[in-house]
Amino acid sequence: MIYVTRKSHFNAAHRLHNPNKSEEWNKTTFGKCNNPNWHGHNYILEVTVAGVPDPDTGYVIDLGILKKIIEEKILDKCDHKNLNLEVPFLKGIIPTSENLVKAFFQELEDDINRVAFDTSTLYCVKLFETERNIAEYCPNPRI
Amino acid sequence: MIYVTRKSHFNAAHRLHNPNKSEEWNKTTFGKCNNPNWHGHNYILEVTVAGVPDPDTGYVIDLGILKKIIEEKILDKCDHKNLNLEVPFLKGIIPTSENLVKAFFQELEDDINRVAFDTSTLYCVKLFETERNIAEYCPNPRI
Amino acid sequence: MIYVTRKSHFNAAHRLHNPNKSEEWNKTTFGKCNNPNWHGHNYILEVTVAGVPDPDTGYVIDLGILKKIIEEKILDKCDHKNLNLEVPFLKGIIPTSENLVKAFFQELEDDINRVAFDTSTLYCVKLFETERNIAEYCPNPRI
Amino acid sequence: MIYVTRKSHFNAAHRLHNPNKSEEWNKTTFGKCNNPNWHGHNYILEVTVAGVPDPDTGYVIDLGILKKIIEEKILDKCDHKNLNLEVPFLKGIIPTSENLVKAFFQELEDDINRVAFDTSTLYCVKLFETERNIAEYCPNPRI
Amino acid sequence: MIYVTRKSHFNAAHRLHNPNKSEEWNKTTFGKCNNPNWHGHNYILEVTVAGVPDPDTGYVIDLGILKKIIEEKILDKCDHKNLNLEVPFLKGIIPTSENLVKAFFQELEDDINRVAFDTSTLYCVKLFETERNIAEYCPNPRI
Amino acid sequence: MIYVTRKSHFNAAHRLHNPNKSEEWNKTTFGKCNNPNWHGHNYILEVTVAGVPDPDTGYVIDLGILKKIIEEKILDKCDHKNLNLEVPFLKGIIPTSENLVKAFFQELEDDINRVAFDTSTLYCVKLFETERNIAEYCPNPRI
Repeated sequence: MIYVTRKSHFNAAHRLHNPNKSEEWNKTTFGKCNNPNWHGHNYILEVTVAGVPDPDTGYVIDLGILKKIIEEKILDKCDHKNLNLEVPFLKGIIPTSENLVKAFFQELEDDINRVAFDTSTLYCVKLFETERNIAEYCPNPRI
Repeated sequence: MIYVTRKSHFNAAHRLHNPNKSEEWNKTTFGKCNNPNWHGHNYILEVTVAGVPDPDTGYVIDLGILKKIIEEKILDKCDHKNLNLEVPFLKGIIPTSENLVKAFFQELEDDINRVAFDTSTLYCVKLFETERNIAEYCPNPRI
Repeated sequence: MIYVTRKSHFNAAHRLHNPNKSEEWNKTTFGKCNNPNWHGHNYILEVTVAGVPDPDTGYVIDLGILKKIIEEKILDKCDHKNLNLEVPFLKGIIPTSENLVKAFFQELEDDINRVAFDTSTLYCVKLFETERNIAEYCPNPRI
Repeated sequence: MIYVTRKSHFNAAHRLHNPNKSEEWNKTTFGKCNNPNWHGHNYILEVTVAGVPDPDTGYVIDLGILKKIIEEKILDKCDHKNLNLEVPFLKGIIPTSENLVKAFFQELEDDINRVAFDTSTLYCVKLFETERNIAEYCPNPRI
Repeated sequence: MIYVTRKSHFNAAHRLHNPNKSEEWNKTTFGKCNNPNWHGHNYILEVTVAGVPDPDTGYVIDLGILKKIIEEKILDKCDHKNLNLEVPFLKGIIPTSENLVKAFFQELEDDINRVAFDTSTLYCVKLFETERNIAEYCPNPRI
Repeated sequence: MIYVTRKSHFNAAHRLHNPNKSEEWNKTTFGKCNNPNWHGHNYILEVTVAGVPDPDTGYVIDLGILKKIIEEKILDKCDHKNLNLEVPFLKGIIPTSENLVKAFFQELEDDINRVAFDTSTLYCVKLFETERNIAEYCPNPRI
């Protein structure tokens, strides 16, 4: 089992806010991350595929194709966007890093599994909101 | 002449938009940076002071004091904020990195020059909007 | 299961030395790391919590609270200190990175598990002694 | 179980090419990575050993000895070399990152397991071909 | 005067070799960098333009246009290429970092100066051959 | 004029303390950096040489030779040492980054100027005490 990772970047605005709760609850819970005028980040996204290399190519997945899938499914929809307002697949989700990695995983899974060699599959999605705050989602067991 | 630099971080939302121009001009000129729903960055800020070290302390400037000035004059006002809407000293300025470094320099200059040793003075302000896009303002000659 | 990581820094002096062994054994075993006049590092500490996000907040753990726990339990005790002489919870421990990550894990575990959402728990402690020398302690199985 | 990692660098030329396939297949499959005049990388190599620290030294493995093994078995053979033409243990292998991490693991395994404390063993080999393209091989289960 | 920098990457093979000198001189002078089978690097290129921001846009130069010029004049010609054999504007040049930054500056100068605002001009080209070996060319005086 | 930079690392213990001043003055002035039990850093050192490349080699200075000079004059004397107690050329100097860059420059100057091509000379010494605190000494005018 070999793990192949592709790293990408995007910039976006967001705000942590739960619309089912009061203004006060949101302010107390999320502090300055609740600012109604938004703030933003240079997100770093790492997508990891696990599998066995194709003996003809030596590839678990063609990183050029993986790059294109990440661009189409994530970057084109999130880069220079407002994650609360403008990304259809994030509708109704509070855009914490925890929720983002899970949503990104689900968004990427089918396309990646279709093109990865043989039984290779999407393994992890990792997101750096800042250099110091990081979330990772790896739902499948490590084999 | 010794150059001392302090590096800081802040996150903010912004949008490139010139209110004196048409929507179309703005869209053509600034592209996705003109998105009316904002986007944002993890800015990295480097502030450089030039001078001769105090023989008693070996300091051109006490970096703890420099850190506090940067926090009070820049970070507290810009971190988790909207640079177009919420920062008084940026009022009327299109928040490109070029304009930000100049505004930050002017905001920092008096306080830093007052506490720096002897003839030491603020020399440069450098801003990384992303890891790949950087602006620097150094108005005084290199001696 | 989502993994959330907070990255911190501290600077400290240390020395690798086993007081139950001879000077010669120490010198041969630890080389220049045994220098009796100490040396030091800019340590980078990564603390990872594993769990399920709280549906109200989208947080596995509030990173602001995690940051405060790391500050109180580790940084306040270790930053700008001598790890052999001044840190009570490191008493009797040779401060290799291996031993430090285990001691840091035990120091952090109770406080983090108490504030993390539901069944979320401290998962890993990782320490960069230098950019090139790294240790990690993850005693619980990956679920 | 504690994981200890040593990070190294080397520079090398390579080319992705499967000699059992046609020129056209190679060009289509590997694109500019198939350039017959070669291209190259600053590879970053991370070698991770898993084990229990020796109570006398606090070491899972002496990182000075690990460094020497990596130098002898990998860096001396690969640094400033052509990975397709000049490295005996890579003979017949298409030098994708996936194939390189597996070959490096096999090259390192015996020497590392011999010197690591007690039951400590080589756990993972990770290779950064670029900052954005990464492969990792961890054949043994995480205990 | 404001300095704006754009950072890019490319991978290439090269070899240090002076064809006017003997094999022995080349081997002694350039050591393993003279390897006839080539080696390679992940080059990082920083291009800096100095000028006054356009009051309408806040730009010294549109970084999207600067990016395109760097791609056309440098990256398309050098990425995944052999710098000794395949880059017309490097013909006859020993590809040390010193010689590369000068050649890159001359290649970029006209196009950049034409599109930069008003009197803004190309100021510096900086090249990281590795993280540790760096060259910079800044032929014009700092104003 | 081309600027060539070599980056190095070393780890050391130090303490900010002026022996001509009272304990109280030292504690107030230097805070936790005055800790009598020392603290330490992973220093990053950048040494820059300015000059014209030798037409035969394309080198301003052979970086292998520059590396060796930095090792002999700085790293061998400072790495894994106590900068206040064990480095002869730092005797009587309060080891702030400002004072260190000046002392390192003077220590390196003669050897570097002797081996650099033609009129090439040592231009700058830059020291990162931490990722965020940096000092630079460039006594000669930029030509």
